[in-house]
Amino acid sequence: MTSSFKVAVAGLGIVGGGTVRLLQQQAGLIEKRVGRRVELVAVSALVAPPDLDLTGLRWYPDAVTMAAECEADLVIELIGGAHGIALKVCQTALGAGKHVVTANKAMLAYHGAELAALAESKGVFLGFEASVAGGIPVIKALREGLAANRILEVHGILNGTCNYILTRMRKEGLDFNAVLADAQALGYAEADPSFDIDGIDAAHKVAILASVAFGCPVRFAPANVEGIRHVSALDMKYAEILGYRIKLLGIARRSGDVLEQRVHPCLVPVDAPIAGVEGVFNAVTIVGDFVDKVMLVGRGAGSAPTASAVVADVMDIAAGRASAAFGVPVAALDPLEPAPLSVRTGAYYLRLMVRDQLGVLAAVAKALSEAGVSIAKVFQDERSPGEKVPLVLTTHDAEEASMQRALALIAEQDSLLEPPRMIRIEQF
Amino acid sequence: MTSSFKVAVAGLGIVGGGTVRLLQQQAGLIEKRVGRRVELVAVSALVAPPDLDLTGLRWYPDAVTMAAECEADLVIELIGGAHGIALKVCQTALGAGKHVVTANKAMLAYHGAELAALAESKGVFLGFEASVAGGIPVIKALREGLAANRILEVHGILNGTCNYILTRMRKEGLDFNAVLADAQALGYAEADPSFDIDGIDAAHKVAILASVAFGCPVRFAPANVEGIRHVSALDMKYAEILGYRIKLLGIARRSGDVLEQRVHPCLVPVDAPIAGVEGVFNAVTIVGDFVDKVMLVGRGAGSAPTASAVVADVMDIAAGRASAAFGVPVAALDPLEPAPLSVRTGAYYLRLMVRDQLGVLAAVAKALSEAGVSIAKVFQDERSPGEKVPLVLTTHDAEEASMQRALALIAEQDSLLEPPRMIRIEQF
Repeated sequence: MTSSFKVAVAGLGIVGGGTVRLLQQQAGLIEKRVGRRVELVAVSALVAPPDLDLTGLRWYPDAVTMAAECEADLVIELIGGAHGIALKVCQTALGAGKHVVTANKAMLAYHGAELAALAESKGVFLGFEASVAGGIPVIKALREGLAANRILEVHGILNGTCNYILTRMRKEGLDFNAVLADAQALGYAEADPSFDIDGIDAAHKVAILASVAFGCPVRFAPANVEGIRHVSALDMKYAEILGYRIKLLGIARRSGDVLEQRVHPCLVPVDAPIAGVEGVFNAVTIVGDFVDKVMLVGRGAGSAPTASAVVADVMDIAAGRASAAFGVPVAALDPLEPAPLSVRTGAYYLRLMVRDQLGVLAAVAKALSEAGVSIAKVFQDERSPGEKVPLVLTTHDAEEASMQRALALIAEQDSLLEPPRMIRIEQF
Repeated sequence: MTSSFKVAVAGLGIVGGGTVRLLQQQAGLIEKRVGRRVELVAVSALVAPPDLDLTGLRWYPDAVTMAAECEADLVIELIGGAHGIALKVCQTALGAGKHVVTANKAMLAYHGAELAALAESKGVFLGFEASVAGGIPVIKALREGLAANRILEVHGILNGTCNYILTRMRKEGLDFNAVLADAQALGYAEADPSFDIDGIDAAHKVAILASVAFGCPVRFAPANVEGIRHVSALDMKYAEILGYRIKLLGIARRSGDVLEQRVHPCLVPVDAPIAGVEGVFNAVTIVGDFVDKVMLVGRGAGSAPTASAVVADVMDIAAGRASAAFGVPVAALDPLEPAPLSVRTGAYYLRLMVRDQLGVLAAVAKALSEAGVSIAKVFQDERSPGEKVPLVLTTHDAEEASMQRALALIAEQDSLLEPPRMIRIEQF
């Protein structure tokens, strides 16, 4: 029998606790599948969670010390945070010749290529399946399962909090703030929800996906990120009438050497498979030149599903079948030129709150026409002269730059009583 | 640079042709991702397809000779058939110390464990990602991506022909035979469609999935297989009224050391994610004890998607990161006790074509009650005394054995004008 493969866990929060429990509970199954024992030898956290059995494990109050000094072959980093102690733990562990597995998307979005290069130089592996879409094995699908394809696009529902909020808004006809407050009370949204609802978390994940999909260095692109705060119950209603659902999507698309990478709410056709992914579930669709579309759906967060992804990486490394972090050696990554959002071409949904008076539609149509955007459908109901009414329209395919010009022209209209609301339409 | 990894392809039909094209077209990308060149050196087929460029390749009229004598490190078997030449090719290649990759589900359903054992004894790998659900990397997900889980259940839409027929029946209100004829004319169904529509193909695939999921030897279970011939436009209509869609599902479920493995049409709730998988698409849902449910959706057949799966296996083997065929060494596979269909517990849909006369419902209700099956909903429309009318009902959870007893009792009724139609309801 080969000697055991030794593992240390830094951070005993939700995911760290789940990982410790998984390693303990499934020890026999893991040994059978890996062909050697995977042994948890050390943990580090500020306080020991009372519900974890840490008997026989070496305890390190300082995770960096553990990364440097413990006897583990692999350190699992589950502390979180982009630049702080988590990064130090990973750098130290890799520098000491230990493999690293992490669920830390923020850190990877900023330091992914640098950490992968360090791992490579030390002949060890960096695993991060758990950093995107929780329990869904999407990194493995991109890096191995669909490796024979040139990947054209990856898009997905990458934030369960947002999908939960949007799903409840739609089903219950509630407005954003009401559902957010309830989600916070239920523990589905953080006290400070900005990271989720402003799209940052999804943007970190889409940066990681793009890197693995296209073989380019990870590049977080905060400029092309828009969250769901402005999505209203009215938008939900009109989207439904028009045959769409609203989802916050992360999208990465390669055209030649140009990379479109963005996060924003989208109208997707109600019969598109991704439209049916509801509640806290995540989904990732991969488009490859041979395989066409593959969609993976599952739980994108939570203790046990995320632990499943963490330990899958550990098992791959312990079994000696791990891949290069981003599918190819770091030196072989091709930098792609980041495209600004203004190059997007597609259809748009527009909701204007206008004073119901003569000539409003004509003025809006003129603004769109001047900007080179042509109208596909117009929808106006609840007419009551003199009052605020929603004027909803969709456009044919147009360039984002033209649409932004149209929005600026529309914003000048006297009859406009609120800023115009625009949501991009994606046809999958 | 490492020497090239040499590959031979046996069988140049739809999938074989696609595989040759993929290996040629993506040679650069494959080399970059694998870290060495993957070189197609030999092919075998009865006739050379005119649209393939076979320049420089060694041609073998006999695939077994190629398996024995060619210089390849790996033979790709794409001839098909459970017991004939395909099996001989695989045995010969493995026996000669060559890796084997195959898309041949029928062969694996009968000879999977035996071939895996032969591969193991020779220190080579047997890859079969392409044998289940075409381009969807579901074998890899089970064997590696979700390896930290005890798998509780795998179920899915595993036959695109059936799903295409059922989707068109539902959307167009057509009967089975009309859609089948059209599907044959369009090339979506074979001239002899029995293999697909009687559920055999799906049953081969579910046998393979069960083996990888539960670590048991592959065991084809033809007794528990029912196809879609008897599904009628009426059933489609009533399923929809009741809030369900009809899908042909392969289901494998483990309870302790007992394995339920079956293929039959199912009513699934219309808002279950798998209900939205339409047309030729396949889907597989994996339920693990930590990850909960993960669903993978994609093209389950076709030249390019299947080639994507074939070459993914080749790349894993060439890169030295392949896994044991069924996730663990053959000697570590646990035989599970096959459960007869009669142990199934669940709800049932029942459609009876009855003469519309007094007391029919009472008699049917009595039969069900005597068998211990309780009625959940009853539905009868189009009443026109003396004529044939459908009487539709669903039951609460009952044992299959009880339901079969009830069906036998109902079949004795005078008022019954056609054999009763039963479809199982699965709540996912």
